[in-house]
Amino acid sequence: MTGSVVFVGAGPGAADLITLRGARWLAQADVVLYDALTDPALREFAPQARWIHVGKRGYADSTGQDAINALMVKHAQTSAVVVRLKGGDPSLFGRLEEELGALANAGVPCEVVPGVTAAIAAAAATRRPLTRRGSGRSVSLTTATTAPALDAADPASDARRGADTEVFYMAGRRLAALSRRLHAAGWPSDTPACVVSRAGWPDMLASEHTAGNLASASVLHAGRPMVVTVGAGARRVAGTTPAAGAANGRTSAPAPGRSRLASSA
Amino acid sequence: MTGSVVFVGAGPGAADLITLRGARWLAQADVVLYDALTDPALREFAPQARWIHVGKRGYADSTGQDAINALMVKHAQTSAVVVRLKGGDPSLFGRLEEELGALANAGVPCEVVPGVTAAIAAAAATRRPLTRRGSGRSVSLTTATTAPALDAADPASDARRGADTEVFYMAGRRLAALSRRLHAAGWPSDTPACVVSRAGWPDMLASEHTAGNLASASVLHAGRPMVVTVGAGARRVAGTTPAAGAANGRTSAPAPGRSRLASSA
Repeated sequence: MTGSVVFVGAGPGAADLITLRGARWLAQADVVLYDALTDPALREFAPQARWIHVGKRGYADSTGQDAINALMVKHAQTSAVVVRLKGGDPSLFGRLEEELGALANAGVPCEVVPGVTAAIAAAAATRRPLTRRGSGRSVSLTTATTAPALDAADPASDARRGADTEVFYMAGRRLAALSRRLHAAGWPSDTPACVVSRAGWPDMLASEHTAGNLASASVLHAGRPMVVTVGAGARRVAGTTPAAGAANGRTSAPAPGRSRLASSA
Repeated sequence: MTGSVVFVGAGPGAADLITLRGARWLAQADVVLYDALTDPALREFAPQARWIHVGKRGYADSTGQDAINALMVKHAQTSAVVVRLKGGDPSLFGRLEEELGALANAGVPCEVVPGVTAAIAAAAATRRPLTRRGSGRSVSLTTATTAPALDAADPASDARRGADTEVFYMAGRRLAALSRRLHAAGWPSDTPACVVSRAGWPDMLASEHTAGNLASASVLHAGRPMVVTVGAGARRVAGTTPAAGAANGRTSAPAPGRSRLASSA
């Protein structure tokens, strides 16, 4: 018997941000291989499946990746449906290429179900659209973890203003370096910036900053997965109150509507 | 009585790519204001609601936008839950800023539920991750419709290679101009490119190209909403078969798993 592997984007956090298609694949799963960042509440969609924790998204070393690849192939040989559940969207910062390649080499069929990625979850929760009329026509998504220019003083490499709005994933321990990089890339130090940690979770935190003082977000968001939005998309929409997004300084902004929705589930 | 407006990202097409949270808001809606690009099958989630078509996403002129704003405010004054349903994700190329501003001015409370945007739906359906180890660490999302440099011969404005992977929305009638722009920005003419129209729908089409010959996609995808992916994220993953993504030349790639999932709904 040979099964297939379905990559499912779990969305950014709260279980109800998964797609219907993803939830239905979970309901059919025999085995679920999941990352640390996926919501435990997702287990309710697949109580019959064997859930196997395979590590921390974005930080797995190559040994860890090899082990994940081997686990996928092994379980596909004995199970009809193996779900590989990834936080956010599988195609963005999810090491999907390596896993697709491993399955192809082993002859295991697969498919990919997209999910809501953290950048747009943060934009929704803070009501700050990533694109704006006139001033915000392009959005760049980058991981701060692997960017070589982040800690190196190499202005020729990556040090430029690439889009009207830039969103940085995995910037947690690099906020001061990110401010320096933005300065080198030509962003004025008073450019609006917004830091959101655990976007989409009930305990989400959001705070307003500028490109020049990102380091001030370090304490509030310490140890939490975060996205940093810089530029046009970080501005509060004119006319909205502070409560509609992140307040000045610091604010806890719970995932919108979750409590109301729980009762209608 | 004053209600609230909930912006819901419908996802890129097929109704089962909406989030659970979005589907639950639809089930509570009294009125749904929807764009042309949203799947008629979504109506099954809100059969009790009044569905009002408010125009074509991405092409609405300012008069159309004012009318949409007025409709949202009007219905929020007489209905508890007004869902503003947008194709893809509301925060990306969805004119959300204007609509949030109008509601704020009218004192109407609102929230935003994110959705799967076309770029990641296309990546999932063609199994071509937007980020790649080493070669693809950043992704840029741009609309070709509003980019001023696209048809103008102004190499100083926007004419640069902004990310390892670039995804262009609404490039439909501008494919030849987009090739010229990519050339001016320094992309080699043999850079891989992938064109996907109606990403996430059952009648999705995908085709492989290069940055230099995008115009050859015009006939296949004529009149269909499309995204164009250029750079690292457009490459087929090593080891995968052509059937795993877009084939050389042209291929129809149906939304993965939809028929299997329909039976488990």
